[in-house]
Amino acid sequence: MGRSFVAKRFSGGGEKLSLDTDALSRFDDVIDLSIGDTDIVTDSAIIEKAFADAKAGYTRYGNPKGDPELIDAVLRAWEEDFGEKLTEDRLIITPSSVFGMAAALSAVTDPGDEVLVLAPYFTPYRTQAEFAGAVVKEVPLYPEEGYRISEERLEEYITDKTKIIIFNNPVNPTGASYNASEMMALRNVAVRHDLLVVADEIYTFYMYDGEYTPIRMLPGMAERTVTLNSFSKNFLMTGWRLGYIIAEPDIIEAIGSVCDFWIYTSPSISQRAAIKALEIRREVEKKYIPIYRDRVMYSADRISKIPYMDLVRPGGTFYLFPSVKRTGLSSKEFTDLLFEKCHVTAVGGH
Amino acid sequence: MGRSFVAKRFSGGGEKLSLDTDALSRFDDVIDLSIGDTDIVTDSAIIEKAFADAKAGYTRYGNPKGDPELIDAVLRAWEEDFGEKLTEDRLIITPSSVFGMAAALSAVTDPGDEVLVLAPYFTPYRTQAEFAGAVVKEVPLYPEEGYRISEERLEEYITDKTKIIIFNNPVNPTGASYNASEMMALRNVAVRHDLLVVADEIYTFYMYDGEYTPIRMLPGMAERTVTLNSFSKNFLMTGWRLGYIIAEPDIIEAIGSVCDFWIYTSPSISQRAAIKALEIRREVEKKYIPIYRDRVMYSADRISKIPYMDLVRPGGTFYLFPSVKRTGLSSKEFTDLLFEKCHVTAVGGH
Repeated sequence: MGRSFVAKRFSGGGEKLSLDTDALSRFDDVIDLSIGDTDIVTDSAIIEKAFADAKAGYTRYGNPKGDPELIDAVLRAWEEDFGEKLTEDRLIITPSSVFGMAAALSAVTDPGDEVLVLAPYFTPYRTQAEFAGAVVKEVPLYPEEGYRISEERLEEYITDKTKIIIFNNPVNPTGASYNASEMMALRNVAVRHDLLVVADEIYTFYMYDGEYTPIRMLPGMAERTVTLNSFSKNFLMTGWRLGYIIAEPDIIEAIGSVCDFWIYTSPSISQRAAIKALEIRREVEKKYIPIYRDRVMYSADRISKIPYMDLVRPGGTFYLFPSVKRTGLSSKEFTDLLFEKCHVTAVGGH
Repeated sequence: MGRSFVAKRFSGGGEKLSLDTDALSRFDDVIDLSIGDTDIVTDSAIIEKAFADAKAGYTRYGNPKGDPELIDAVLRAWEEDFGEKLTEDRLIITPSSVFGMAAALSAVTDPGDEVLVLAPYFTPYRTQAEFAGAVVKEVPLYPEEGYRISEERLEEYITDKTKIIIFNNPVNPTGASYNASEMMALRNVAVRHDLLVVADEIYTFYMYDGEYTPIRMLPGMAERTVTLNSFSKNFLMTGWRLGYIIAEPDIIEAIGSVCDFWIYTSPSISQRAAIKALEIRREVEKKYIPIYRDRVMYSADRISKIPYMDLVRPGGTFYLFPSVKRTGLSSKEFTDLLFEKCHVTAVGGH
């Protein structure tokens, strides 16, 4: 054997989002609460539409910016739901919002740019930003404060190299949610320092306290926001790999360049499915989201009764992020024990 | 308006794989010979299988390495077709081979590594390699020599920074194809200098002179080859976005890390479709590939009769790469004229 050809940045293995699937097979009664997937099959009306269109010929590449009918559907739904009339050059369809985030960060990051993340956060953000050449700085939020964003504290992390703040609402993993007034702290800092906010807003149907407001709707934010959306969670379509990005035309064009050499187009059939999904979005929301809300709130009630665990009651998503500090165990020790003793998988925080 | 947030590397626009779709709408009788897509709808048996499995619940995330049944099917087909028994840790499913190439190059490239491409080549290779931090060097092949690979000439481009050779067989855009003995020149250089060959082998059903041999099957190559394959062209499944990569386990693991933060999983339904595609691969090959062979050869015959155009008769793919040198026009001028006068789109070479 010759040398290893693996790049140095991957030679250490690195943090993985994926689960240890071998571990899952050790017991036959595992309850998998790790990856944010759904156990509910995509609504059959969406599947039917996808396959009628596949048979009709939508099995080929489409326009790399997105299926024109899907683009129309997204623009129409956005205007109906949020009252913002967007032009076509502010939208691109992407194969998932994980992809969208990686592509967006690569499109706007120059080496050495500083990117702020509000911790705790969805761990791929760091890898994605660093891969794009950024220096990541974590701004801590505190469970004791209900994960409130403090303008003063955020200010302390701003330097003249700060370019981007990654924002997630509602939040994976904490379940926190922010309404318009709670986002003003972030908005004020972004506007004051001329920063770009990259907003991962993919659990927007899963808001349990009040309404979802896209952060781009706050005053002065539309021109400094990259809005990431996805069909995965809102429409129970995780396996279809489809999302979209709204941003200023020059950013969309740069993201389009990244898409071109990373994947070329999003899956055609998934795009046809998404047209139907948007058409029936109110029915989907009414039919499925209460199931998750009830499960999450039931689990929150139960966890709140467990000694040595502390939990901020979630305002959104289908995640719970209890603190295990009072157990005296690290989160890794705790999740290992949870798996060994209870056959329940969970992702540890930091 | 504040500053532009676009990264410097994209601020110039850059080379695009995608077509100017606005141009396409200027005439109502455009013959689109630009992007390598098919006009034939995916075989209905493949669509039916995908649909049945979607209804049965395959609409969720799967294993990030790939659907276990698809992994089995690929390993089995590979052994049947090429006699090589691969272990599971040498395979990963990817959402297209464009994605596969970008991910593979990112997994094996350290900044400053030199990557050789054999020109003319599929233009995204350069962008993908440079994005991963590589320095790209073009090794010219010549139509007068039937695009033969010369061991001596390849040697001239090797330095102590050379790490990777990107190889494509059969070749987009030239239509050249290489049999085992013609690949020995490349193999000898790769083995002598301990290089990695990243082999884009996605048109393997479209071989018109002799059999396709994966370059990894040459002596000493398996441990230094990354084989990229795709369902797009061989199975007329361009819109499904699915491919796979075969390589040594450490490389597959690194590619898995890239996949994790770039896209997480490939489309689940497309993976179910691909299981069926592999099952009926001989029928698909017999039913559809002759249609393309006949079209390509017919077009080659016609182009050969056009004064001022020169063409190397293709040995594979569905591409033709005629030289327009004797017209006195640049390739851009020629393709612009072709569009204006004949409403035929084509991609110019360099």
